[in-house]
Amino acid sequence: MHRKERSPTISTPAYGAKKAIAEAKKIGKPVHLAASSEDKSFSFIPKTHQLSDNPAYLHITTNNTIYGTEWHHDPEVEAGVPLIADMSSNFMSKPIDIQKYSMIYAGAQKNVGPSGAVVVIIKKDFLATAQSGLPSMLDYQIHAKNGSMYNTPPCWTIYMIGLVMKWVEEMGGLEKIAINNQVKAKYIYDAIDESNGFYKGTVVPEDRSLMNITFRMATEELEALFISEAKKAGMIGLKGHRDVGGCRASTYNSLPLPAAHALAEFMKDFMVKHA
Amino acid sequence: MHRKERSPTISTPAYGAKKAIAEAKKIGKPVHLAASSEDKSFSFIPKTHQLSDNPAYLHITTNNTIYGTEWHHDPEVEAGVPLIADMSSNFMSKPIDIQKYSMIYAGAQKNVGPSGAVVVIIKKDFLATAQSGLPSMLDYQIHAKNGSMYNTPPCWTIYMIGLVMKWVEEMGGLEKIAINNQVKAKYIYDAIDESNGFYKGTVVPEDRSLMNITFRMATEELEALFISEAKKAGMIGLKGHRDVGGCRASTYNSLPLPAAHALAEFMKDFMVKHA
Repeated sequence: MHRKERSPTISTPAYGAKKAIAEAKKIGKPVHLAASSEDKSFSFIPKTHQLSDNPAYLHITTNNTIYGTEWHHDPEVEAGVPLIADMSSNFMSKPIDIQKYSMIYAGAQKNVGPSGAVVVIIKKDFLATAQSGLPSMLDYQIHAKNGSMYNTPPCWTIYMIGLVMKWVEEMGGLEKIAINNQVKAKYIYDAIDESNGFYKGTVVPEDRSLMNITFRMATEELEALFISEAKKAGMIGLKGHRDVGGCRASTYNSLPLPAAHALAEFMKDFMVKHA
Repeated sequence: MHRKERSPTISTPAYGAKKAIAEAKKIGKPVHLAASSEDKSFSFIPKTHQLSDNPAYLHITTNNTIYGTEWHHDPEVEAGVPLIADMSSNFMSKPIDIQKYSMIYAGAQKNVGPSGAVVVIIKKDFLATAQSGLPSMLDYQIHAKNGSMYNTPPCWTIYMIGLVMKWVEEMGGLEKIAINNQVKAKYIYDAIDESNGFYKGTVVPEDRSLMNITFRMATEELEALFISEAKKAGMIGLKGHRDVGGCRASTYNSLPLPAAHALAEFMKDFMVKHA
């Protein structure tokens, strides 16, 4: 997705954007880095950005699953600059001001359904500016024109996404889902912040993700023990991403409140035993 | 998938190959039409082909779901010319001589599982010749290097494919599956051939598909009545593809023998009433 006769500008506050940059370069587009916190281990969301001249769009990744940062507001972008957001890991976790985005894309597998589908929301006038001649599977104009059935769609996956959308409504909608996610994350971040440094959050507090809570401990051995003891207590998936190590608790929509509370209590107990 | 420094040659005995040609052109490759039966409404599989000079590969589509043709033998190709087959609609319907193919690809949704996955089988030495720099989702080297997990894989779909593969083994393997498919198709083709022209097959007998049995009747009104009466008898999906009209019975692996037999009997009854 690139606008005609413009060079795209890509902001990379989050890890996922690195891949977006690499793909843009492949189809021969110059890429400008509008902002990055890479030199600080992606520990915060950049508060400013510098656009290129006549940018095709600004791209952001709204939640970083690996480093644990999240955009907690819809960004302000210069007038006339389309905003594209990769919302793969926090789409449907809270209300957003959808009008601010020219395009949103999100892999289904975090909050909306099984893996194997991507949700794309795109403004019609932005779609009309898309570059033509891309391979069909990457050409959103072709998908839109064919009602998302240019290829045989993954029917079961889409059906399951429908069921999850109904579940969101039954839960009270995105407002209620967002409150649940805040409460869940607070249990765990409180356990980190009240540990006197036994657990160390990797992200500045204001940019902490409500989906992926990342923290380190004094040694890798202690982290390994924590993960192993947690597993014995029935809590899995607490190992950090292989690229960065450490610990990570993922608190997507489907995680119930009591599970997040139980992890926080486990963290306190573990600290008492091993501090 | 294109070999370096060679121009691809694409044979199009089947409808699906038209899309393969269009995609090859998009990434700037000259395409040569090695053979086609388009001027005869795709009613047969061309028995000869004419390669371009120094072809990158020869591409065939082994079963045509719309026009109802099928390759019943693994093609003979000039030495040194890689053969690529789109087997989407007859993969796993019979044994094949897999060594003859440099690459096979097949959408899962016909004989191997739910929609949402594609099976790709590719020789390592052919994979090594692939063009680099394609968008990652279309770059088989990237998929192979990452164990098919460069993107988050459609786990449930793959699991279901595994169950279907076990079912194939329980059924007696591809040899037995192939016999079943021959028997099912024979029920229906016999009903066509013994109808004195009431049902008219659209394909020359030697190239008839065992997966998609296409036929016409004297008028579109009669075809509509046939489809409607069949539906009342519990038989659905008999309408031909929207591009060509007529009638089509699909007899993929999962269709039981009695269902094919019941359709043949229904066809005979319908003929008695309406001939």
